[in-house]
Amino acid sequence: MSNTANAKLQIEKVKESRVSSIDFSDLAFGKTFTDHMFYCDYKNGAWQEPKIVPYQPMTIDPSARVFHYGQAVFEGMKAYKDDNGKVFLFRPDQNFKRINKSAARLAIPEFPENYFFEGLKTLVNMDKAWIQPGVGNSLYLRPFVIAIDSAIAAAPSESYRFMIICAPAKAYYKGTVRVLIAEKFSRSASGGVGFAKAAGNYAAQFYPTKLAQDRGYQQVIWTDADTHTYLEEAGTMNVFFRINDTLITAPISDRILDGVTRKSLIQLAADNDIPCEVRPIKVSEIVEASKDGSLKEIFGAGTAAVISPISAFEFQEQVYELPEVNEHSYSSRLKSKMLNIQHNLAEDKNGWRMEI
Amino acid sequence: MSNTANAKLQIEKVKESRVSSIDFSDLAFGKTFTDHMFYCDYKNGAWQEPKIVPYQPMTIDPSARVFHYGQAVFEGMKAYKDDNGKVFLFRPDQNFKRINKSAARLAIPEFPENYFFEGLKTLVNMDKAWIQPGVGNSLYLRPFVIAIDSAIAAAPSESYRFMIICAPAKAYYKGTVRVLIAEKFSRSASGGVGFAKAAGNYAAQFYPTKLAQDRGYQQVIWTDADTHTYLEEAGTMNVFFRINDTLITAPISDRILDGVTRKSLIQLAADNDIPCEVRPIKVSEIVEASKDGSLKEIFGAGTAAVISPISAFEFQEQVYELPEVNEHSYSSRLKSKMLNIQHNLAEDKNGWRMEI
Repeated sequence: MSNTANAKLQIEKVKESRVSSIDFSDLAFGKTFTDHMFYCDYKNGAWQEPKIVPYQPMTIDPSARVFHYGQAVFEGMKAYKDDNGKVFLFRPDQNFKRINKSAARLAIPEFPENYFFEGLKTLVNMDKAWIQPGVGNSLYLRPFVIAIDSAIAAAPSESYRFMIICAPAKAYYKGTVRVLIAEKFSRSASGGVGFAKAAGNYAAQFYPTKLAQDRGYQQVIWTDADTHTYLEEAGTMNVFFRINDTLITAPISDRILDGVTRKSLIQLAADNDIPCEVRPIKVSEIVEASKDGSLKEIFGAGTAAVISPISAFEFQEQVYELPEVNEHSYSSRLKSKMLNIQHNLAEDKNGWRMEI
Repeated sequence: MSNTANAKLQIEKVKESRVSSIDFSDLAFGKTFTDHMFYCDYKNGAWQEPKIVPYQPMTIDPSARVFHYGQAVFEGMKAYKDDNGKVFLFRPDQNFKRINKSAARLAIPEFPENYFFEGLKTLVNMDKAWIQPGVGNSLYLRPFVIAIDSAIAAAPSESYRFMIICAPAKAYYKGTVRVLIAEKFSRSASGGVGFAKAAGNYAAQFYPTKLAQDRGYQQVIWTDADTHTYLEEAGTMNVFFRINDTLITAPISDRILDGVTRKSLIQLAADNDIPCEVRPIKVSEIVEASKDGSLKEIFGAGTAAVISPISAFEFQEQVYELPEVNEHSYSSRLKSKMLNIQHNLAEDKNGWRMEI
């Protein structure tokens, strides 16, 4: 069934772009935003007129439900520019489907498909001067929906705002990442919202991650809440393990995000004759594999980081070091293949690129 | 260790109160707010000057972390007025401790004790004309903290806003409540944030609750995520069961909120020679007790609802009806005792009232 709506996109342009004032060589992730933003309000049971306006603060009541009950979901996507100035999105259909899946789980009305794509494409096109060409550069796109009812009853909001904001980006994680495997804290419950990009899932990880950082780790790898014996995902990434020549990643579930990078890497592995198993993987299996030398790699996978190699993990107060990454590592090979597809430098046999 | 700060509370009063325009006989919960609000911003590593200003919308960037990562916690409290016009809070020390416990779990800096109490008391005193006397009437107080950094990196915010807003209230649930016992969806994981009043905990319940409502139930009683065999809490309430003459409620844990009403009822039960057991309670135990007639009552307990009697529950597609509530029911007796203490109509032997 198609999910479309009929209002015309309204556009108000900035008088003068800020892009010439930006030092693209020195950008902190997610703090600089482009000239414009997209938004569309839901009220009286329907999504209203979608709009692109100059990026600006919003006015919102202190009683807005998003502040009190965390009724908010988001997506992370990127736009890429090739050396000829062409601009591409990467599998935006996946993000569209997922934001509505996340929304449904949080009792947020689904967003119309045509508003999403028209808004996204028009916005990226208007602000394409903000996209630097070159592998590693991108424009990070953040669609999100928040509950804006001025009412503090603990019930779903009757009004929402869908927005897209854009931030020029370089690679998210710099350097190698050391991770702590969770033994006490948890990210999500079976039957909960772990599979959704629900805002509250992220804040819940900040404190355990801070504790890990205080001990010299950049991220936590989450395990199942019941037994802490199965490896699930990292804070903002899915996780892959390489034992001997086989990649392994956990199956998605209601606790694990259905990552676009994750599923693309599984396909790329198949395309490149890299054996890849999607199955539950125990902490004990990677501990044993590390001890006998068969654990070759661990890496995180996500839109922001693309692929983030992990250099060591700690579990039960033991630290396990991984071999150094080189150009033959799966993480290097797959990352290069992903980036080349995203930046229009390689054939796109799976039809993942969408030119704007 | 005392947790205090030194700035003087700044006050800006409304020119004219709106209170005379309010129809207190016809108030939807949480949609009408008093003349003033309290707020205090955190930046540069410290809580800044606390302020009371006219209630008003706020200006916030679309990239504010609260919108993206749900870094937000809150409290629910009430102020009561007796027939002589005296105003009381109920165990505000418990709410103060809990908001900072919630904050710590979400990597939010703790709020100073003196700012909390001076802000709360001054605000309630300024807006006390909004409190109707009479049992059942109250002023609902909503302290909350939100992450306001303009940055979408998935990490704790460096700036926050602590606020208190106030809404005149009557009893929260009207009529009897039928509940569905969760068999698939979950509220929280061991090692997660279920014990905290974290915003995201609430949005995660809206969809399963809506499904329950579509089937004629007002609330869900959550069970443990691992096995769905233990009764934990209702959406916005702790839950008590009466089997024969004994009250039973689940122990608090990292999955269950340490409710102020819950702990007050446990003490009131002791004060009134009502046997009360705090122990894990299985769904099968109340199913059996319902079948053999020993299950006399189930009720929810929380600040908003005080006590909310449950008239029926469904589990595994079987509906179990509870006996009708009368004035001898524990729910009636305990609710009456709580309200009388809160409204200064009974002795306060535990020292729970704080006069403003």
